[in-house]
Amino acid sequence: MKISYIIFIILLTNSLFAMTIKDTSLVNIKKHKVALAIHGGAGNMIKRKYTPEEEEAHKKVLNDALDLGYKMLSNGSKSIDVVEAVIKIMEDSPLYNAGKGSVFTNSGTNEMDAAIMDGSNLKCGAVTNVRRIKNPISAAKMVMKKSKFVFLSAIGAEQFAKENNLELVDTSYFFTQKRWDEMLRMKDSTNTVLDNEGQGNIEPLDSINKFGTVGCVVIDEKGNLAAGTSTGGITNKRYNRIGDSPIIGAGTYANNKTCAVSCTGHGEDFIRIVAGYNLHALMLHKHFSLSKAADIVINKDLKAVKGRGGLIAIDKKGNITFTFNTTGMFRGSIDTKGNKTVEIYRN
Amino acid sequence: MKISYIIFIILLTNSLFAMTIKDTSLVNIKKHKVALAIHGGAGNMIKRKYTPEEEEAHKKVLNDALDLGYKMLSNGSKSIDVVEAVIKIMEDSPLYNAGKGSVFTNSGTNEMDAAIMDGSNLKCGAVTNVRRIKNPISAAKMVMKKSKFVFLSAIGAEQFAKENNLELVDTSYFFTQKRWDEMLRMKDSTNTVLDNEGQGNIEPLDSINKFGTVGCVVIDEKGNLAAGTSTGGITNKRYNRIGDSPIIGAGTYANNKTCAVSCTGHGEDFIRIVAGYNLHALMLHKHFSLSKAADIVINKDLKAVKGRGGLIAIDKKGNITFTFNTTGMFRGSIDTKGNKTVEIYRN
Repeated sequence: MKISYIIFIILLTNSLFAMTIKDTSLVNIKKHKVALAIHGGAGNMIKRKYTPEEEEAHKKVLNDALDLGYKMLSNGSKSIDVVEAVIKIMEDSPLYNAGKGSVFTNSGTNEMDAAIMDGSNLKCGAVTNVRRIKNPISAAKMVMKKSKFVFLSAIGAEQFAKENNLELVDTSYFFTQKRWDEMLRMKDSTNTVLDNEGQGNIEPLDSINKFGTVGCVVIDEKGNLAAGTSTGGITNKRYNRIGDSPIIGAGTYANNKTCAVSCTGHGEDFIRIVAGYNLHALMLHKHFSLSKAADIVINKDLKAVKGRGGLIAIDKKGNITFTFNTTGMFRGSIDTKGNKTVEIYRN
Repeated sequence: MKISYIIFIILLTNSLFAMTIKDTSLVNIKKHKVALAIHGGAGNMIKRKYTPEEEEAHKKVLNDALDLGYKMLSNGSKSIDVVEAVIKIMEDSPLYNAGKGSVFTNSGTNEMDAAIMDGSNLKCGAVTNVRRIKNPISAAKMVMKKSKFVFLSAIGAEQFAKENNLELVDTSYFFTQKRWDEMLRMKDSTNTVLDNEGQGNIEPLDSINKFGTVGCVVIDEKGNLAAGTSTGGITNKRYNRIGDSPIIGAGTYANNKTCAVSCTGHGEDFIRIVAGYNLHALMLHKHFSLSKAADIVINKDLKAVKGRGGLIAIDKKGNITFTFNTTGMFRGSIDTKGNKTVEIYRN
């Protein structure tokens, strides 16, 4: 009976081993707490210039975007899909400078940029200077998923979008009277105005017209991070300028090891300080907290190049930061406890 | 006589103080040892396919570029000016994939990218998808110096170049029979070929036609670092694709605190790992040596995304590294001791 005894022992061991495996897998599928944050641009926003109705109109878009994103996350959606859906809501609103509400260039055109990045695998996609894609963020995601390239531009990006059945619209879709009037006021000037801000010797634009770049950062139930940014650029821009929004590592970056981040402000300065990867590297190499790293990026590195703007970011634990050196930033979040905030001005 | 005595003491003190100042200023103007490194692209280069004459022709361009750069540095030129001049030599050669020797897109056009960065002040400039600018690296430098923007594209960038009196040429200037034939062989395929490499199910191109992106990194007598990269992109590319070369932080980066770097390879992967700033951050935050940091970027981070290519970099002490995971890289350097090397294959 010695052999039967040995077989019994082997079977018992295997069963215990199988139970251990099962327990491990139970641990593995434990859901992370979900959270998301969004921005609609940072800038110098003067409170007295906004009527309560104007403030509410803008907050409503932020609320709608947050609610959709949180619902998707609660239903198990992937962070990358949530980023796209949330940003589409802001692109479709004429109130923010992305998609429908994009500002006009010096040539009277709309040139839009967007980027998206998946922190779980470092896959990313971006488009720049597109004029006919209804939702540039969806084009960025399509580039990430369907193209072997990362960054497409102009007519070529539109061709790619068309081949992949994304919605193209007539350029008149992007026309809004207020954006057009802003551009006319700037026209024949070599000045450009970052949305949300009056600059230099140019009169600050009517504040209600000053809305910026939009962005979203998310952590989903699997703990995967994702980030996206979409923008119409700067009013009266020339020379097919590209800002930081579509630049992976500058305006947009995500990495499960650390954080997901989306920036807004004077793009040139965010490119110079490689803001997104800068934040990641401070967390990865120096083991700084999200808020400490964000403080260094905005209040030290951005300041050192005289830059203005801010960022939103979320870390792998779901902590959220809104860090900016302007007087306001359209922003909102639903944190890991389900608490929602929507703000405009610096507190 | 007490007052005279006091005056004498004061004068003596002042003289000694002035001498001290003089000594300090002598220390301050002590010249750093100059050095530079260049690349003409990394790829899978098979030795037996190159004739000695072909090798020599390519080495001659590298030699000419190094000699000019070192002469300029010895005469006190700034690193940023040396980067431009050195890259212009490689752009003007039909042998490298930048400027005159640029590869053709799927549409039969040449779309060139370039970027330059000054490590002393983090100023930078870049252009992408330009078709008529004879020397894209000069356009990038002009963007840095004369524009409030950092990154210009396509026709807009050409307009800017024209307004700033840079040389525009007819697109036929960039025609070379070999590049055209390469593109025809790829045409109607969805494949693209990174210069220097045969890919997937596509026959490797005739090796003599496989030359890549060019780049230069420099330290000048003031210890200022600068980096530049210029490229014709990838043969048969579509959709106005943008690679890593013109992306500050990815293909090109310079910062006096650490290093100057120029990358070459599959641009998409260098964008995903934000290669240039990645190198900088490893040196800045982890205090790794240039070679250790470069090893991590290429042999760990690039490998993790299955990327292929390499980088050249120089640190603030003038140390140089050539790090690549391909079988070859056209490359050369003159180090701080004045020693020159020009190589093609992995040693």
